[in-house]
Amino acid sequence: MKLAMIGLGRMGSNMARRLIEGGIEVVAYNRTFSVTEQLADETGLEATDSMADAIARLPSPRVVWMMLPAGRITEEYVDGALLHMGEGDILVDGANSYYRDSLLRAEKAAAKGVHFVDAGVSGGIWGLKNGYCLMVGGDEDVVKQIEPVLIALAPAQDRGWAHVGPVGSGHYTKMIHNGVEYGMMQSIAEGFALLKGKEEFNLDMAQIGELWRHGSVVQSWLLDLTAEFLQHDYDLEGIAPVVADSGEGRWTAKESIDLGIPAPVIQMALVMRFASQGSGDYADKLLAMMRKAFGGHAVDAE
Amino acid sequence: MKLAMIGLGRMGSNMARRLIEGGIEVVAYNRTFSVTEQLADETGLEATDSMADAIARLPSPRVVWMMLPAGRITEEYVDGALLHMGEGDILVDGANSYYRDSLLRAEKAAAKGVHFVDAGVSGGIWGLKNGYCLMVGGDEDVVKQIEPVLIALAPAQDRGWAHVGPVGSGHYTKMIHNGVEYGMMQSIAEGFALLKGKEEFNLDMAQIGELWRHGSVVQSWLLDLTAEFLQHDYDLEGIAPVVADSGEGRWTAKESIDLGIPAPVIQMALVMRFASQGSGDYADKLLAMMRKAFGGHAVDAE
Repeated sequence: MKLAMIGLGRMGSNMARRLIEGGIEVVAYNRTFSVTEQLADETGLEATDSMADAIARLPSPRVVWMMLPAGRITEEYVDGALLHMGEGDILVDGANSYYRDSLLRAEKAAAKGVHFVDAGVSGGIWGLKNGYCLMVGGDEDVVKQIEPVLIALAPAQDRGWAHVGPVGSGHYTKMIHNGVEYGMMQSIAEGFALLKGKEEFNLDMAQIGELWRHGSVVQSWLLDLTAEFLQHDYDLEGIAPVVADSGEGRWTAKESIDLGIPAPVIQMALVMRFASQGSGDYADKLLAMMRKAFGGHAVDAE
Repeated sequence: MKLAMIGLGRMGSNMARRLIEGGIEVVAYNRTFSVTEQLADETGLEATDSMADAIARLPSPRVVWMMLPAGRITEEYVDGALLHMGEGDILVDGANSYYRDSLLRAEKAAAKGVHFVDAGVSGGIWGLKNGYCLMVGGDEDVVKQIEPVLIALAPAQDRGWAHVGPVGSGHYTKMIHNGVEYGMMQSIAEGFALLKGKEEFNLDMAQIGELWRHGSVVQSWLLDLTAEFLQHDYDLEGIAPVVADSGEGRWTAKESIDLGIPAPVIQMALVMRFASQGSGDYADKLLAMMRKAFGGHAVDAE
């Protein structure tokens, strides 16, 4: 089995490493060629400085795995890759793409006879060691063809990967996964904030983070990671209180609205990220001014 | 080491079992004596039908562990136990008591020279097998005295139990733990609702629950339990959509308000439980009537 890995960012390069460890041949393309060369030196993968060449080096049916930032960049590379692919080839998008985009890309691919597979990938920087959780959407027989690749990436042959449904359902499942992640993260964060805020008890957040990892109902991988960094500095001085968001939370919130199914905790976790980014500041200024207007309350200068 | 276990509900009886397995002698009292006798037959603990007698059978300093429903019942038994306890004795409350109540009970106990320890216990029905996570508040030297008990209950000698701070801080930490649990549960539940609601993908919630357990960022014990029951029936037919709440969520929400520290996800998880209990129904009726009043929209009969 051989595939082309397009994009060697944090995810793509670690996935390439794991694929090679798992006996899958990889030809890789990355915008910055030096990264590809370095990874080739380390792992023995085939390096090329052209996506077209990467695809040309594949046996038929060609399997191309994209691991690029979701959105415009993935769109451009999908279009580019399809120029060099044809009947029976398989294009896998492993990015956190919006599932509605994946449905459209599957149509574009189908017009050229190319099978599209949307693979949601979780596991972050730990995936190399532990294996990636893979949520795969696509036609049954197509997913079957790339099974050896999925098994090499997954934590084990029989777990951590699944064909969840038709095209679009892989990225949909990953989107919801990330929505759940938003809510779990926010809940854990709020808990530690309430521990820290209870000054009279002078609690040790690092101790409690570690404590909760054993025998408690909130045991989780997110808590494991939190307990780890709290050991080093639980005051988190020098860390700006700004939380980025990268799409999946917004899409999950919009999906909740489209479906008319309440997901208030996931939405609230998203809203709190917006607030952390300062986008609620103007409303807060307005509120301060309103209080001044009706009650003469003091307003702080910025 | 010997202690009196007061209350042999689900938690108390399993904790008594684990204590005895761990080499701690237990004399037990339970309102319904047949339960005590049965557990005595099973484990060899000392059974008595009087709390006073249970306490009288202890060596000095006497260690009494209460495992009763929080609130009025715990209050009554604390008062009752203190009648039979004195200087240097140790009264441990292992219930999910409100930490403000524990602070008051510690004062009552101190007036009699009795040391009060508030031990938050997590682990539910799985604690017997895996050990309980114990969050303990009290004076340093007092907690030191009951260390063998804590170690016998905990997952291991060196983890899953901790003296987190002064009296009150154990139940405070457990309260926040349960608040975090509310938010995590709600987030997971919302995610599966959005998976189920996406009918066009015909997703298998049992498959995805199991899938997410391996290599994903949302790995957690709560997900493990969820994946388990989803295997049996992911439509959950026959289960009423009503979620009870038992105190800690409400206290956490109030604490957030007292401290002026936002915990919107935990609060929202609590609010959604209230809604599930039907306490938002009157507001919903009002909303339906308002829509009728201004727009002539139809109103469903109950």
